[in-house]
Amino acid sequence: MSENYSEQAKAVDQRVKTLAGAAPKVMGAYGQLAGAVMTEAGSLDSKTKELMAMAISVSIRCEDCIVYHTQAAIKYGASEAEFVESLAVAVELGGGPSVVYSAKALQAFRQMVA
Amino acid sequence: MSENYSEQAKAVDQRVKTLAGAAPKVMGAYGQLAGAVMTEAGSLDSKTKELMAMAISVSIRCEDCIVYHTQAAIKYGASEAEFVESLAVAVELGGGPSVVYSAKALQAFRQMVA
Amino acid sequence: MSENYSEQAKAVDQRVKTLAGAAPKVMGAYGQLAGAVMTEAGSLDSKTKELMAMAISVSIRCEDCIVYHTQAAIKYGASEAEFVESLAVAVELGGGPSVVYSAKALQAFRQMVA
Amino acid sequence: MSENYSEQAKAVDQRVKTLAGAAPKVMGAYGQLAGAVMTEAGSLDSKTKELMAMAISVSIRCEDCIVYHTQAAIKYGASEAEFVESLAVAVELGGGPSVVYSAKALQAFRQMVA
Amino acid sequence: MSENYSEQAKAVDQRVKTLAGAAPKVMGAYGQLAGAVMTEAGSLDSKTKELMAMAISVSIRCEDCIVYHTQAAIKYGASEAEFVESLAVAVELGGGPSVVYSAKALQAFRQMVA
Amino acid sequence: MSENYSEQAKAVDQRVKTLAGAAPKVMGAYGQLAGAVMTEAGSLDSKTKELMAMAISVSIRCEDCIVYHTQAAIKYGASEAEFVESLAVAVELGGGPSVVYSAKALQAFRQMVA
Repeated sequence: MSENYSEQAKAVDQRVKTLAGAAPKVMGAYGQLAGAVMTEAGSLDSKTKELMAMAISVSIRCEDCIVYHTQAAIKYGASEAEFVESLAVAVELGGGPSVVYSAKALQAFRQMVA
Repeated sequence: MSENYSEQAKAVDQRVKTLAGAAPKVMGAYGQLAGAVMTEAGSLDSKTKELMAMAISVSIRCEDCIVYHTQAAIKYGASEAEFVESLAVAVELGGGPSVVYSAKALQAFRQMVA
Repeated sequence: MSENYSEQAKAVDQRVKTLAGAAPKVMGAYGQLAGAVMTEAGSLDSKTKELMAMAISVSIRCEDCIVYHTQAAIKYGASEAEFVESLAVAVELGGGPSVVYSAKALQAFRQMVA
Repeated sequence: MSENYSEQAKAVDQRVKTLAGAAPKVMGAYGQLAGAVMTEAGSLDSKTKELMAMAISVSIRCEDCIVYHTQAAIKYGASEAEFVESLAVAVELGGGPSVVYSAKALQAFRQMVA
Repeated sequence: MSENYSEQAKAVDQRVKTLAGAAPKVMGAYGQLAGAVMTEAGSLDSKTKELMAMAISVSIRCEDCIVYHTQAAIKYGASEAEFVESLAVAVELGGGPSVVYSAKALQAFRQMVA
Repeated sequence: MSENYSEQAKAVDQRVKTLAGAAPKVMGAYGQLAGAVMTEAGSLDSKTKELMAMAISVSIRCEDCIVYHTQAAIKYGASEAEFVESLAVAVELGGGPSVVYSAKALQAFRQMVA
């Protein structure tokens, strides 16, 4: 097994911090946007929103996004059953490509909860 | 206002039925897959899964998919607040393109619940 | 039924001709590329290549592309069975979004062969 | 010719305003982000940035985005030559699908400058 | 040369098996779907369908999919000429991004047939 | 820091050369297309076009494309400020996924100008 998703998550954070240093206005505004998503209305909890973000990440085949939102979903208490069901939605909406990216996401989930 | 999303939902259903007649094995299997997504484990309810499917549809800019899963989310009792928060996740994950498709999705939601 | 895919095919051709008038070097080179695809090696026939192009068009949800390559596949003699099997590959590789775009493609095919 | 891109631009604006009413925090933050993009550093002018946004819109096949950013590029003084060269970059990066969406973008440009 | 595509193919298989263990209903249904694609009607042979799946994989930039369907195309007897012509269709439909992913696909093909 | 984008750029070039050897007609035509993009009309300079190509590459999440067009933008004299502003446009048009790919692009830029 060659992938280490916790390491990858750290590398993503580091690179995004560097980008924020280079583009403070834009990244500051993006941070506000991401924060607003969590607080708008509040009918869905943060765990559900992060599972949704993770399922979108699988659907668009963005590995760094998968790693980021998997970590966040775990932080908000997502169980493996909830995580896998979110992957299932992505598979219905994406077929084979979502299968292979869901497989990566599950591997990342299990590494990160371990 | 030119769009009529309820009409579009019917046209989608009609076309997919025609496809199912032409490719019964593949479409039968796809139907099994879609059904399995709803029943796998069961930690997330159908409403949440359909909101997730709708948010993915916005993220990948599939208008017929938006129409289909908006209708399904309404059927499972999604409120406008829950619907809008799901759109917000798509906007965080997709920027401007998700804004314009979320705007279509909200228009579809309001037409369909009316 | 509101769609008229033969009309859409004409509108695509017309718009692309206008673009070619505005960007003759680039569009001339693109025409060379499209021509080369048909003549490179020659182990696959034109019908198969156009069915492949149509299946890709479904997979990336490009309606004008679907219309264009459906017309071309018909021109090279594709049967409905071959067309539907190409759609099936797109469904395996794309799930629900490929289902709804395949449904459009089949409608276009039937209109155009009629 | 069936498309009226100026009308479409108005419909996009209207729908996005409705979305902003439903999700004021998220859409307010998105507005801040869009504004920040225009003012970050300032080494590229607004016309160039809008042409870039339009070329991205073609590349991802987002018609409402094309309409929106074509209108903005015109507002900032983009010439047809500059517009067409931006489309050419999208064609290099996207092949046939970018050809058919570039053809739509050029039609929109000509309608809107008329 | 750093990539080892045969190793990657094994890792994909392993991860997908793990996913199938976690989501047996959904993955069982997906397996039925993939099987049905191969047997629906039967006007196109398996080799052609796998080349089509590979060309779609290039077009959507899914590396694990490329690896998977390249291996399958080889299994069904695809020659390098047929493989390269399928890549050519992807290049026509995808421009530069399909060039760089086709280049990876060809590298994978040559490693796997060796 | 594990990524070495200059090495990756060389690997891309090497693989594309191999592909060109296998598909000389198609790749020759693609080369003509890429060349024509740079010379069509000439209202936008090469640096701007390469920054545009790089922003598109981020938007479609094509890492090899990012590496290629980052190198080209540097060759045509793009400054870091111009590069970062192009990334900002991609972030407006792509949200979180464009953030993480922009972060990679900036890392590649800094490695390559060093």
